[in-house]
Amino acid sequence: MAELVVLYKTPKDTAAFDKHYAETHIPIAKKLPGLKKYAVSTGPVGSPAGPSGIHLVAILTFNSVADIQAAFGSAEGKAAAGDVPKFATGGADLLIFDTKEV
Amino acid sequence: MAELVVLYKTPKDTAAFDKHYAETHIPIAKKLPGLKKYAVSTGPVGSPAGPSGIHLVAILTFNSVADIQAAFGSAEGKAAAGDVPKFATGGADLLIFDTKEV
Repeated sequence: MAELVVLYKTPKDTAAFDKHYAETHIPIAKKLPGLKKYAVSTGPVGSPAGPSGIHLVAILTFNSVADIQAAFGSAEGKAAAGDVPKFATGGADLLIFDTKEV
Repeated sequence: MAELVVLYKTPKDTAAFDKHYAETHIPIAKKLPGLKKYAVSTGPVGSPAGPSGIHLVAILTFNSVADIQAAFGSAEGKAAAGDVPKFATGGADLLIFDTKEV
């Protein structure tokens, strides 16, 4: 399998972020071609040292990195990427990788 | 469910990291109480802009954040945490959060 992990840094207005993410971004991102599973963090994103500076983590599962790249190139992928700046006012880091279970 | 995501930054010696991670760290971490699933990245960890600076991502799944905290407090958790500085010469960020599927 492969994962697209999105780390959303704490935005200026967390309530506005949460509303836009739930009502607008999830419905857009769920249309990504090849998406197998989509999980998001609920509640605080912590670290052993305390607050992480991350407001929300999204983990989108695909069959392969090639499928993630194809999703980014699709019309649905462009719509999802185009929506991010509308709510992710703290910025976001995206990580893309194949995985194996150990 | 809940996730413990470990982002290992690129170490000084990636071959030594990979050997220690596969041969020593995985067997230690697999003993964490409450661990339900353990996946690691294979190959490069990319980002849309190019290299991510992350060498390896580990995603450890538990039933809840409370279970992750209990695992950290266990003897097995202390052994796993104590092993990390032996190979993670680039440092590592840990993120802990409950999740829901959307």
